[in-house]
Amino acid sequence: MSIITLITDFGVEDAYVGIMKGVVLSINPAAVFVDITHHINPQDIVQAAYIIKSSYKYFPKGTVHMMVVDPGVGTERAIVALEMMGQFFLTPDNGVLTLLMDEGEIDSIVRVKNKRYFLKPLSQTFHGRDIFAPIGANISKGMAIKKLGPPLDRQELVHLNIQKPYISKQGELVGAVVSVDRFGNFTTNIDERCLKKFYKPNHEKKLEIIIGENRIKGLSNSYSSVKHNHPLAIIGSFGYLEIALNHGNASRHFKTVKGDTILIKYIQEIHCEE
Amino acid sequence: MSIITLITDFGVEDAYVGIMKGVVLSINPAAVFVDITHHINPQDIVQAAYIIKSSYKYFPKGTVHMMVVDPGVGTERAIVALEMMGQFFLTPDNGVLTLLMDEGEIDSIVRVKNKRYFLKPLSQTFHGRDIFAPIGANISKGMAIKKLGPPLDRQELVHLNIQKPYISKQGELVGAVVSVDRFGNFTTNIDERCLKKFYKPNHEKKLEIIIGENRIKGLSNSYSSVKHNHPLAIIGSFGYLEIALNHGNASRHFKTVKGDTILIKYIQEIHCEE
Amino acid sequence: MSIITLITDFGVEDAYVGIMKGVVLSINPAAVFVDITHHINPQDIVQAAYIIKSSYKYFPKGTVHMMVVDPGVGTERAIVALEMMGQFFLTPDNGVLTLLMDEGEIDSIVRVKNKRYFLKPLSQTFHGRDIFAPIGANISKGMAIKKLGPPLDRQELVHLNIQKPYISKQGELVGAVVSVDRFGNFTTNIDERCLKKFYKPNHEKKLEIIIGENRIKGLSNSYSSVKHNHPLAIIGSFGYLEIALNHGNASRHFKTVKGDTILIKYIQEIHCEE
Repeated sequence: MSIITLITDFGVEDAYVGIMKGVVLSINPAAVFVDITHHINPQDIVQAAYIIKSSYKYFPKGTVHMMVVDPGVGTERAIVALEMMGQFFLTPDNGVLTLLMDEGEIDSIVRVKNKRYFLKPLSQTFHGRDIFAPIGANISKGMAIKKLGPPLDRQELVHLNIQKPYISKQGELVGAVVSVDRFGNFTTNIDERCLKKFYKPNHEKKLEIIIGENRIKGLSNSYSSVKHNHPLAIIGSFGYLEIALNHGNASRHFKTVKGDTILIKYIQEIHCEE
Repeated sequence: MSIITLITDFGVEDAYVGIMKGVVLSINPAAVFVDITHHINPQDIVQAAYIIKSSYKYFPKGTVHMMVVDPGVGTERAIVALEMMGQFFLTPDNGVLTLLMDEGEIDSIVRVKNKRYFLKPLSQTFHGRDIFAPIGANISKGMAIKKLGPPLDRQELVHLNIQKPYISKQGELVGAVVSVDRFGNFTTNIDERCLKKFYKPNHEKKLEIIIGENRIKGLSNSYSSVKHNHPLAIIGSFGYLEIALNHGNASRHFKTVKGDTILIKYIQEIHCEE
Repeated sequence: MSIITLITDFGVEDAYVGIMKGVVLSINPAAVFVDITHHINPQDIVQAAYIIKSSYKYFPKGTVHMMVVDPGVGTERAIVALEMMGQFFLTPDNGVLTLLMDEGEIDSIVRVKNKRYFLKPLSQTFHGRDIFAPIGANISKGMAIKKLGPPLDRQELVHLNIQKPYISKQGELVGAVVSVDRFGNFTTNIDERCLKKFYKPNHEKKLEIIIGENRIKGLSNSYSSVKHNHPLAIIGSFGYLEIALNHGNASRHFKTVKGDTILIKYIQEIHCEE
């Protein structure tokens, strides 16, 4: 088994993704692809960072994750390979690994420099095909990543300054909308751990979530715990606070978009940043 | 071979589908996926019911069909597994099986209750990942569905009241538009069997299809049997009456949307409901 | 290994593609699918011709490419199978092979007539399911294409008159926009070979690309060789002249759409048509 996942901003209208798979299969005929998404907003590295952090843990050991969100293609930006928790991650060094790296112990990171594995001629506009696909295929066949280039230290990688929730002077927990899904549910950057630091479960009723002019009281356990078209707050399936409308579209209801602020009120002040 | 098909309303923008596949491959590395569609309109159970009815027969015995259109996720709604014609169907008990169950003899139905196969912790918002994926993976590996929970009778399942064609007082066959495809062709709920009851083939010329203010005379044998941009009625590839425009977009031409009424006139009155 | 690629205009909303895969897997359980694209504009044969020409070379020998862009489905149009450079191509005979056939030596072409391999009953509206899928599956299992029907000569195939770049009376190289990708980059019909005939690399500075009212001076080596939101011209990853905006959307910036004219000025007159 040689599972290769793909996270790109290529879309599926053009032939880019299919061509990458052709290159991989030419090298490793046993490759099995899982398209995690090709709909990252063009060049949105933060979105890709959340997606890989939420996804990797559901894949078996040995999986190779190829992440090609690469606004710097053709520049001197590095390409890096990371081995961690038995899985492999291949990406431009642009911060996509920022959230993932907090998930466990890193075994090794290398800078991909060994041109022996690149496609020739090497284009300056489609490294997904010319570098990621052949390198990923070789890793999926068992090639040790140390063969790809010199080791790097974690501190040498580009680190994104991803917005974290914080406590305001007024004692509110201030978070932000990170993504809106197809159902109109929106996910915040407030995770369960952070929320549990902020509120005491036995006082749950006193928690209030404020979205613009709207307020939601308390947390729900399922979408259907409120009436149809009523809003609710819930710890979503990836462990983050999520706002939904039962049988409706919360994003449309609240006119909420990515980046909007979410406030949570409570009586007690605790810092939830690490 | 372990074929697993997927019918969901998840879209492909988010990581939901990829994560389900990761869970399946962690349990059954030999799984082969076929995405039938992830673009069911959010929570549109009727659409999913038509899709599975039209698709299943083209898959080999042993195929596991996972249908995750699940507005009731997190409620007490059951999840059921059905074995029929050598294939397996896994779905929330919400009526998605309504049309399929008329297609052949049912071997067994069970309610999925055995938590041993669920992912832990079990979320209340993403059963696709936590229940459907691991259960489907185990069925695809050959696990008997009776291990999943108690048997159910067909009558115990939720049954959708799907709109059927009928004969009006004026003697017209009254159908409805069920779906519009990418080409603008639209499919009705009038199938060939029903139509054949209504009209005598030797009087075919007298058949008239009425869509709003527009009329089409007779049935065609292929899209190209009329001039470019002319409308035609045809028995489509799934056995239902379909309206198309040769080299054009019928839905745009007729301003037709899902649910619109289609009338068929003929001299003779026959009831086509069973 | 039995790789089957798919190029269609079916989209992914409907079950068409999934059903084709079910038919293939029923015949060849070892088939591995690569979706090159299902988003060819409905019935746009020229687009499909560019896509297959740009893609095939990245796939291993033995790959079967199924191209179902088929406005003539149900008419007397032929279906053809072509063997070339160790790969197989299955398509309606409507010109999709026009650009591909210049890429190398053709081993054989046959007209698909042997109904033994067709699905029964044969619909007049979905040959992707009833003819392409079973025929492609059999080819992928090693069946010789001569079994499918009588041999054809290259000259007997439908040939598209695809717009080629030419030299105007004013001595400008006149090309056209062929496609616009998700990033807003647009590709022209001017390939590297043609451009090299037109300009002498040592006079590169004198090359000027004119898009409507806008002018770009010289060719770049990477997207990032100009400032953010500045336009550039580059030989793209498929060997064609491409216009892009660094970190921006060139198509939106220039209000350019498919079919628009691109002019390239230079002092010397050379004919670049073959």
